[in-house]
Amino acid sequence: MLIEERLKELHEKIKRKVPKGITVASVEFEGPELVIYTDDPKSFADQDDLIKILARELRKRIVVRPTILEDPERAVTAIKEVVGDNAGITDIFFEQDTGEVLIEAEKPGVVIGKNGATLRDITKEIGWTPKVVRTPPIESSTVKQVRQYLRAAHQERKELLRRIGRRIHRDVIAKDQWIRVTTLGCCREVGRAAFLLSTPESRILIDCGENPGNSTSTPYLYVPEIHPLTQLDAVVLTHAHLDHCAYIPLLYKYGYTGPVYSTPPTRDLAAMLQLDYLDVMNKEGNTIPYSSNEVKEYIKHSIVINYGCVTDIAPDIKLTFHNAGHILGSAIAHFHIGDGLYNVAFTGDIHYGKSRLFNAATNHFPRLEALLMESTYGGAGDMQPPRAEAEEKLYSIISDVIGRGGKVIIPAFSVGRSQEVMLAIEEGIRLEKLPKMKVYLDGMIKEATAIHTTYPEYLNSDLRNLIFKEGLNPFLSDCFEQVDSPDKREKVITGDPCVVITTSGMLNGGPVMEYLRSLGSDERCALVFVGYQADGTLGRRIQKGWREIPIGNRETLVINLECFTVDGFSGHSDRRQLMNFVSHMQPKPEKIFTIHGEESKTLDLASSIYKKYHIQTMAPMNLETYRLV
Amino acid sequence: MLIEERLKELHEKIKRKVPKGITVASVEFEGPELVIYTDDPKSFADQDDLIKILARELRKRIVVRPTILEDPERAVTAIKEVVGDNAGITDIFFEQDTGEVLIEAEKPGVVIGKNGATLRDITKEIGWTPKVVRTPPIESSTVKQVRQYLRAAHQERKELLRRIGRRIHRDVIAKDQWIRVTTLGCCREVGRAAFLLSTPESRILIDCGENPGNSTSTPYLYVPEIHPLTQLDAVVLTHAHLDHCAYIPLLYKYGYTGPVYSTPPTRDLAAMLQLDYLDVMNKEGNTIPYSSNEVKEYIKHSIVINYGCVTDIAPDIKLTFHNAGHILGSAIAHFHIGDGLYNVAFTGDIHYGKSRLFNAATNHFPRLEALLMESTYGGAGDMQPPRAEAEEKLYSIISDVIGRGGKVIIPAFSVGRSQEVMLAIEEGIRLEKLPKMKVYLDGMIKEATAIHTTYPEYLNSDLRNLIFKEGLNPFLSDCFEQVDSPDKREKVITGDPCVVITTSGMLNGGPVMEYLRSLGSDERCALVFVGYQADGTLGRRIQKGWREIPIGNRETLVINLECFTVDGFSGHSDRRQLMNFVSHMQPKPEKIFTIHGEESKTLDLASSIYKKYHIQTMAPMNLETYRLV
Repeated sequence: MLIEERLKELHEKIKRKVPKGITVASVEFEGPELVIYTDDPKSFADQDDLIKILARELRKRIVVRPTILEDPERAVTAIKEVVGDNAGITDIFFEQDTGEVLIEAEKPGVVIGKNGATLRDITKEIGWTPKVVRTPPIESSTVKQVRQYLRAAHQERKELLRRIGRRIHRDVIAKDQWIRVTTLGCCREVGRAAFLLSTPESRILIDCGENPGNSTSTPYLYVPEIHPLTQLDAVVLTHAHLDHCAYIPLLYKYGYTGPVYSTPPTRDLAAMLQLDYLDVMNKEGNTIPYSSNEVKEYIKHSIVINYGCVTDIAPDIKLTFHNAGHILGSAIAHFHIGDGLYNVAFTGDIHYGKSRLFNAATNHFPRLEALLMESTYGGAGDMQPPRAEAEEKLYSIISDVIGRGGKVIIPAFSVGRSQEVMLAIEEGIRLEKLPKMKVYLDGMIKEATAIHTTYPEYLNSDLRNLIFKEGLNPFLSDCFEQVDSPDKREKVITGDPCVVITTSGMLNGGPVMEYLRSLGSDERCALVFVGYQADGTLGRRIQKGWREIPIGNRETLVINLECFTVDGFSGHSDRRQLMNFVSHMQPKPEKIFTIHGEESKTLDLASSIYKKYHIQTMAPMNLETYRLV
Repeated sequence: MLIEERLKELHEKIKRKVPKGITVASVEFEGPELVIYTDDPKSFADQDDLIKILARELRKRIVVRPTILEDPERAVTAIKEVVGDNAGITDIFFEQDTGEVLIEAEKPGVVIGKNGATLRDITKEIGWTPKVVRTPPIESSTVKQVRQYLRAAHQERKELLRRIGRRIHRDVIAKDQWIRVTTLGCCREVGRAAFLLSTPESRILIDCGENPGNSTSTPYLYVPEIHPLTQLDAVVLTHAHLDHCAYIPLLYKYGYTGPVYSTPPTRDLAAMLQLDYLDVMNKEGNTIPYSSNEVKEYIKHSIVINYGCVTDIAPDIKLTFHNAGHILGSAIAHFHIGDGLYNVAFTGDIHYGKSRLFNAATNHFPRLEALLMESTYGGAGDMQPPRAEAEEKLYSIISDVIGRGGKVIIPAFSVGRSQEVMLAIEEGIRLEKLPKMKVYLDGMIKEATAIHTTYPEYLNSDLRNLIFKEGLNPFLSDCFEQVDSPDKREKVITGDPCVVITTSGMLNGGPVMEYLRSLGSDERCALVFVGYQADGTLGRRIQKGWREIPIGNRETLVINLECFTVDGFSGHSDRRQLMNFVSHMQPKPEKIFTIHGEESKTLDLASSIYKKYHIQTMAPMNLETYRLV
């Protein structure tokens, strides 16, 4: 059936279901949603469960929007008039995609009003559906820029969402029935994640990241399986780390025009890290593979979905994100394929254990036949100590080094490890387990932290309570200080004993290099690894004991400072957690593919899971294709 | 390096190697060969081993051709004048690709002359290198047509070979190193053969056949792995059966413009069967997937290679055909990839045992790491009786049925089974193990037999001796009679007891249907299966015991005649032969993929080979991709 006819049919069906007196002006596919435009949004909302009933019957995600929305600029004025100055409104953001207006205020209660009275007044005035959130305690320039950009591009984005929506809801026509996974990277290696999930009907790319050991090596994007890129239905991004997202903008340079699905924090973090990646590449004299224009294209084409929300992304594929416990917004991507035919999930990176920031990764799904799971610490001996033990060890190293007048350099991913370590050190100082001292943050760490506070619903409830109920935001502690200029960095280097948390986490570029150049030969100082160091990175070399390391331009890095590895802060599950993740899965999948790990670890994990749980396992190689059905 | 520069360099090198006084007018890549054009072909030929030395040093297949060749029409006149009428010349065919002229004569000795004197005279007159063969005892219209067509298209073909040659000899540029096999059909099923062998540099398609159970179902040609077809370097055809070659012409319809490599008899047999396939499709009211124009394209693009001849088909791939023992010209395709990197062979269909027509399949290779082997009779119980036993059984059935006044219908592939059965029955009658009677041949069987006698070097030496030395050509026995019209068929049906060998072999269309319509209900008659009946074919259904079978157009076939299956005539290896093929292989491959067999048989064979010979095995599914390196 032509899509126009389908929309017409849906329009008729909906009109028949909706009580008299409520208009259904038009219906339209916009991205994964079916949007009902009405002149009577309030009456629509008053009908209990009407939207739910329609959604169930039409098997679509349904959104109701007023036909007439006030012009955003005039709406801002109207909102401010209705609310008054008392609320401390800091931002008003019009979600053009959803017809919602996000009001950020220091006192959300004032915007809501008694029993929601003020909110209702706003709705009457402007048509937009207001949503109120507390102003994030740290302002993120990334979030601001992303919002500004989406505001500016909203007309283009509307057309784009309609185009995507019509593509998603096209008829299923294929006679064959098969499901395949093609490995374009990330097999028997860490990072360079890229998997193609394909059916006769659709093609989905999951992640598109860099190789941390060689940032210019993309996934195998030149093989025919993924071409033409215009035939891809969707890109699904599990989380914002560069080994999963670095090359997504490149897809737009090469002709991709479809959507990228992720959680909201993943979109913002990914954009931030991609721009930083370009910056670092540039500073190191590398040719950049794409420009900030392609990052903008990515943002323009991004569609965000929260955990647990089942979403059509192709005529025969539904996507649901589940918490992965790894970093802010990190998700396990679950695909329901065909009408009950098959279910496959990609873990991305998972932490199956509660951390200071997040809950443990989800391992319960409505249905699941196949799982592609990470194996970073999948080797038989890859045990991590408990978090408390790790923190004690870190405290002891810091106390020693500060005590002898040295500085502690902690290289960390700006997203994830940094925040965990910040929270541990802040508590250490607050509870006087550590001496009073400055903790400098260099690189994108502060900005990343700001993004964390913009999405409190993605943090675990303990931390959320601490920040919002007890009013104690550890990220705002005055022990933290941002390094925001070369001058400042110089002062830190020559100044008092302190801790520096800085990027990049595996020492492949970034400000950490400046600290190593200046302090690498200082025996009083210490370098503390708290995260995984991939093969081929400078971090791995130093860990292995290299002490004089050529780093290009005839420069040699001398390492005299003391080097430590503090295991236990990882955002990855250790071997025991990986096995437990499988052991407690509901339901048990029929097949598990072990990926995202060094060769020996993927093989070891695959064989251990098979032996212990009698699940068929496979450690694929890159560039292979496996049938699931 | 640009190809022009390379040719220039080669030209210089060759000029330095060639003795003074012999001109090297130009060098050119034509298909897989490097052609040296000279004004002095005879002086060139007089230099012992010069061509061999050049070939070894330049690592190319080298052909020397005179700059000036007499115009074919005038050359024909010249040849006839030199030879005279005595020789009984029946055909003169100019091999434009090689500069050879093939003279078919009833008395080859006369064309050769005393000590080759006449041949030398011919060379002097026309420039072309003469080759003399005995006129085939049965004239093949297919061979005649193919030759005529190649003659007409020779100018176009010359350009095409140059284009292909330049493509084959392009520079190797890829940095990555991998070898993959993608299964586009023929996995866990019989037929529909199609495999893609790819490296970062090249892509080769091996076979492209129909599904015998459903002749409209092509291999999975719609998946991206094989596109664009213009990027394919070569198609390699193992043998002429339709489940391996039916859809090769379709590739030209879809935009392929490259070569198809096969042995010479495979080219002619394939063209014959493709045209017959179109004819059968048409008669049964099916839409034909391509027309005879695409068959012509196929012939125009075909490059023939004999067994054992190592041939460059891509910058990093060399192909060698080896005898497969299955049908005339059937080959195991051996690929040598990279400079000593890896070797993989595709068996096509193999018979590892001597038959009346062929020697047993080859299983010795210079090097071999991976093998994709057929598994038609790969199940644990798939034993075939010895050929002598099978013949006794066939004789006994025929004697009984003829004795009771019935007719024996033997459906058989026109190529392979028919000739085996013909030879057995002819001997039976000759040695009076069978009563004197007519053996009617319907369908393409006679034409296929003619092609066999055109390529005697592809038959085993016993049969060759019988025909050419002892002067007893069993194919010419007067027991055989061709059915060449509906009238004649009607006469056979209503006539005396007899044997009818007729196509198609699995009863999916063809003249056999007419015999079944008329004689199916006659209890005195018998239907004797001598070949494999694939799932989904009418043959398989009757074998399973179906006795009233709807065959479309509201027609129902009634089967009252006696049905027999005589195992032991198969052109496939039985289980024991497959295991022996592996057991006696030299060298032993590291990996074996079992393909071209029903699911249970490929799995059973894979697990048996693994258990018995400790070779890693795999029974892939369709649409998968495996890394070899």
